[in-house]
Amino acid sequence: MTALKNDTFLRALMRQPTDYTPLWLMRQAGRYLPEYCATRARAGSFLQLCKSPSLATEVTLQPLARYDLDAAILFSDILTVPDAMGLGLYFAEGEGPRFERPLREEWAIRDLQAPDPHDHLRYVIDAVSEIRRALDGSVPLIGFSGSPFTLACYMVEGQGSDTYAQVKRLMYARPDLMHHILNVTTQAVIDYLNAQIEAGAQAVMVFDSWGGMLTQAAYLEFSLPYMARIMQGLTREREGRTVPRIVFTKGGGLWLEAIAACGADAVGLDWAVEIADARRRIGDQVALQGNMDPSILLTTPEAVSAEAKRILASYGQGSGHVFNLGHGISQFTPPENVAALVETVKAESPRYHV
Amino acid sequence: MTALKNDTFLRALMRQPTDYTPLWLMRQAGRYLPEYCATRARAGSFLQLCKSPSLATEVTLQPLARYDLDAAILFSDILTVPDAMGLGLYFAEGEGPRFERPLREEWAIRDLQAPDPHDHLRYVIDAVSEIRRALDGSVPLIGFSGSPFTLACYMVEGQGSDTYAQVKRLMYARPDLMHHILNVTTQAVIDYLNAQIEAGAQAVMVFDSWGGMLTQAAYLEFSLPYMARIMQGLTREREGRTVPRIVFTKGGGLWLEAIAACGADAVGLDWAVEIADARRRIGDQVALQGNMDPSILLTTPEAVSAEAKRILASYGQGSGHVFNLGHGISQFTPPENVAALVETVKAESPRYHV
Repeated sequence: MTALKNDTFLRALMRQPTDYTPLWLMRQAGRYLPEYCATRARAGSFLQLCKSPSLATEVTLQPLARYDLDAAILFSDILTVPDAMGLGLYFAEGEGPRFERPLREEWAIRDLQAPDPHDHLRYVIDAVSEIRRALDGSVPLIGFSGSPFTLACYMVEGQGSDTYAQVKRLMYARPDLMHHILNVTTQAVIDYLNAQIEAGAQAVMVFDSWGGMLTQAAYLEFSLPYMARIMQGLTREREGRTVPRIVFTKGGGLWLEAIAACGADAVGLDWAVEIADARRRIGDQVALQGNMDPSILLTTPEAVSAEAKRILASYGQGSGHVFNLGHGISQFTPPENVAALVETVKAESPRYHV
Repeated sequence: MTALKNDTFLRALMRQPTDYTPLWLMRQAGRYLPEYCATRARAGSFLQLCKSPSLATEVTLQPLARYDLDAAILFSDILTVPDAMGLGLYFAEGEGPRFERPLREEWAIRDLQAPDPHDHLRYVIDAVSEIRRALDGSVPLIGFSGSPFTLACYMVEGQGSDTYAQVKRLMYARPDLMHHILNVTTQAVIDYLNAQIEAGAQAVMVFDSWGGMLTQAAYLEFSLPYMARIMQGLTREREGRTVPRIVFTKGGGLWLEAIAACGADAVGLDWAVEIADARRRIGDQVALQGNMDPSILLTTPEAVSAEAKRILASYGQGSGHVFNLGHGISQFTPPENVAALVETVKAESPRYHV
């Protein structure tokens, strides 16, 4: 593999000194970019875009051509794993993801198997290899997966939900079955992320999009321990370098101390947490990634720039901060506001690294 | 007025000793009760139910006839205030609340006036009086309002939203206009709650349903200070007794210390916060109300009972806890699970008050 030219992101995740605060954006390859929409139209559908390694490579690289970002993230979807488990992922037009066969019956839950990623998720692994080749050492590539709890939410509900009533009903009424789903899914995620690392992912992130809707007691029983097991199961070194791990529980700000102890190198923050407080609480243990409210990108370059400066100052002096949003970028974001964000972080952050 | 027979709820809010942990449930008069659905069908619509003092009285009392609850809460909707400000509230069938004239133009924002509650909100004030008469001193009556920020969300968006992008855009791009909306709405809420107190509300609660989707900095600028101003503006004594105030920011668990300092007597908690931690953080300043996940009420009487016991034990010994849910009760709740909850709290809580 080509030597990495810009390792600022990887160094910051390991809390090593850097010259500036590295930056990438959750869902940076997305519908706010006209070139993404064009490729997606060619692909025919979101799912076909995910399943085509060459088109996934194309959209992964698009935001890097526009903006001076410090990492690429594999273009894929967290629901590829349950799809590979046989649940039948599809996207109803304008409706978000759905499963043809949600997990509702005990026999179906008992039958669940962790898929071999080299078999049922070959298209993701191939995309990772192809993206690495295309990046040619410019910036590192992030691999990712959903957390077991978040995947279980979709698997049980069969689609997104406001209240996740069905998964909570299962969790409280039949915790044994819920733990079975989580155990199998944890093994699936470990195999999946290790296959991504083997194919060239230089850092990995676990997205726990729905852990924040649990009680603390339920989070500590049904979400965090499975992420901790993933951390233990991941390949630690590859190409002579540590593969850093990021965990992100949206809405998990109350539980940062527990999250920081799960074995990850970095903790993703949503925008509710003041990053200075997060640093005070866990910044001596892990790097922090975040945490601008993506809604600010809907306003003006001036408002974006002011908020980016506020967040940089709030984190303050020293390494260990990866600038990002607190959630995925909105499809309604004007691309020039993203330019203002990137320029501000590049111009203003070096003063915090002297 | 008739002397109050059961003042356990009011005493707990003031952290005075009680014999047991009092209990009421957010949205306790709601669609999970067949008798509520029958009255609503007679009313013709949700809004007509809100606007009829006698029917609002009827549904307010329905859960008290079934369950041994320690407070009644005025049956109404937080959006009556913007409706009285001229925005034109309506409910599209199966779609939730909408406004005919959302606040989008600067002239409309500048024209906004706090309504006289005795004029445009007469039906609410009449309902408060009628409910007080009907309660006949059995349990106290809670009045309520939405928080200025939460009302502003609906006023600007014109309806509920996943991201509240429009209100956030206004807030970041034109903070002066956002503060103007919040100033006028704060005066409206003060007048409205004082009219409810005058008519017989014995405690009041401010619902900040959407403050939790702000950054900490924005919450401390756009939501909490306005709730603090409401606290200062409210009638403190009525019928020879303090009128306790409860504030509840859903998703505000990170900011409990700031919320506890806003002048309220009690702080509502959603289910994400472990109540033992909340007590450790702010329990010497305010009473705590909450915080069972309403999804648990969708399971079984046994699971409900176990979780209620866990929460009582987590709060622990002594007064200052009002048992409630962390959010409104779901329409899909089996009424027998509510019975199990009420019975558990009544049976198990006296041991924490010896």
